[in-house]
Amino acid sequence: MQIARLKHNGVIHWAVIEGKSARLLRNDPYKKIRYTSCVLPLRRATLLPPATPSKIILVGLNYREHARELEMRIPQEPILFLKPPSSLIGNNGRIVYPPGVKRLDYEAELAVVIKKSAKNISPQKAGEYIFGVSCLNDVTARDLQAKDGQWTRAKSFDTFCPLGPWVQTDINTNDLKIQLYLNGELRQDSSTADFIFPVSRIVSFASRIMTLFAGDIISTGTPKGVGAMKRGDVVEVKIDHIGVLKNRVA
Amino acid sequence: MQIARLKHNGVIHWAVIEGKSARLLRNDPYKKIRYTSCVLPLRRATLLPPATPSKIILVGLNYREHARELEMRIPQEPILFLKPPSSLIGNNGRIVYPPGVKRLDYEAELAVVIKKSAKNISPQKAGEYIFGVSCLNDVTARDLQAKDGQWTRAKSFDTFCPLGPWVQTDINTNDLKIQLYLNGELRQDSSTADFIFPVSRIVSFASRIMTLFAGDIISTGTPKGVGAMKRGDVVEVKIDHIGVLKNRVA
Repeated sequence: MQIARLKHNGVIHWAVIEGKSARLLRNDPYKKIRYTSCVLPLRRATLLPPATPSKIILVGLNYREHARELEMRIPQEPILFLKPPSSLIGNNGRIVYPPGVKRLDYEAELAVVIKKSAKNISPQKAGEYIFGVSCLNDVTARDLQAKDGQWTRAKSFDTFCPLGPWVQTDINTNDLKIQLYLNGELRQDSSTADFIFPVSRIVSFASRIMTLFAGDIISTGTPKGVGAMKRGDVVEVKIDHIGVLKNRVA
Repeated sequence: MQIARLKHNGVIHWAVIEGKSARLLRNDPYKKIRYTSCVLPLRRATLLPPATPSKIILVGLNYREHARELEMRIPQEPILFLKPPSSLIGNNGRIVYPPGVKRLDYEAELAVVIKKSAKNISPQKAGEYIFGVSCLNDVTARDLQAKDGQWTRAKSFDTFCPLGPWVQTDINTNDLKIQLYLNGELRQDSSTADFIFPVSRIVSFASRIMTLFAGDIISTGTPKGVGAMKRGDVVEVKIDHIGVLKNRVA
């Protein structure tokens, strides 16, 4: 099932995607999907980020090939960092190139959306706490990341967290093809089969530090092939069985 | 004026402190203080963190003497990091020592609470966007901070962000005495006059990266004298003209 958040005539709705239409929901989808009788053509609505998280947790290095590319050792535990919810934009939202930034990079990622409150859960139980997955672009001001040492500023600007186009539920994350296209050219091309830490391990690890809430996002790292974007570029994160998250750099 | 958030008979209220009493408010205090006729004795209520932020931004190194103590250069720009809202506790809340952590440190800080949405504001205008200030303890698992390089995990555990006891409005932050007591012994003793970046500069800097919202927290760094806590310790952050934030390590 594909769950979207969208705006129509100035009102925000949750919805289930049905082909080129969106069936509106009565409330958020985490406890129970409750349909309305209202169906919209998707082209008449604006897709919003398909989650309203209290926090966005990301993992620093989680693809074996990317670790080799950076000549870094395979980490023993996930390295976590946070983006603020103010950095979220949806599909077709514009990524704003901040003044003073010298290099702006894309990073295609698979993002997990949490279904219900989770604290100290085991990897074996993690699946029960996952609502679904989506495409995320961990936009990064690479020059500021190097300058600060801490990654927060480089990754926290408004519009630096494109998420979407929707959340896909009921999907096995063990071997999903993940690709990034810049102006139609393939730049990242990998599979979650190359993960150092599988989704269940990451969700369990995060839940031992922070209580997770419904709608919280945990992103799972980017594969090799990260690179820079210029103003006017179109960037697409494509994950099989989910969809394509498309954004333009303004 | 001192603005608190408290729980009484299972219900959460905003309130204005009047001596040993709390006068309840109709809604959150950011736009306008609207009183009810209800006054409670403070001892019958539980103080909660006096803000419900969408994000908590902190500054890494902001006291000249602390920079000298660490033999670090005075930074040209603030180094920012984030704590998740799930790490907040209020006055008298218990700090939980996580299993596996080897060294747990206190860090006394002055925290700013934002009054209204702010984006790209100048230092000169920053005052208009500040609702008030409070005491914050930036609890840090020092061993994990060193191990990870990134500070997120070390500073993001549940209960690692004591805030309170309330928010003090209408206060000049140029020379506030800030102290930390561990089991009644003075361990940090400084003044915001030693700031590398004043509050107005930090708020302006953060607003150029992230849109700030009413209730968001920006903490301003810790002075020299940070040190370790053990289970059972009582830690107090005391800032003149605000109050004392007291927590026990469980």
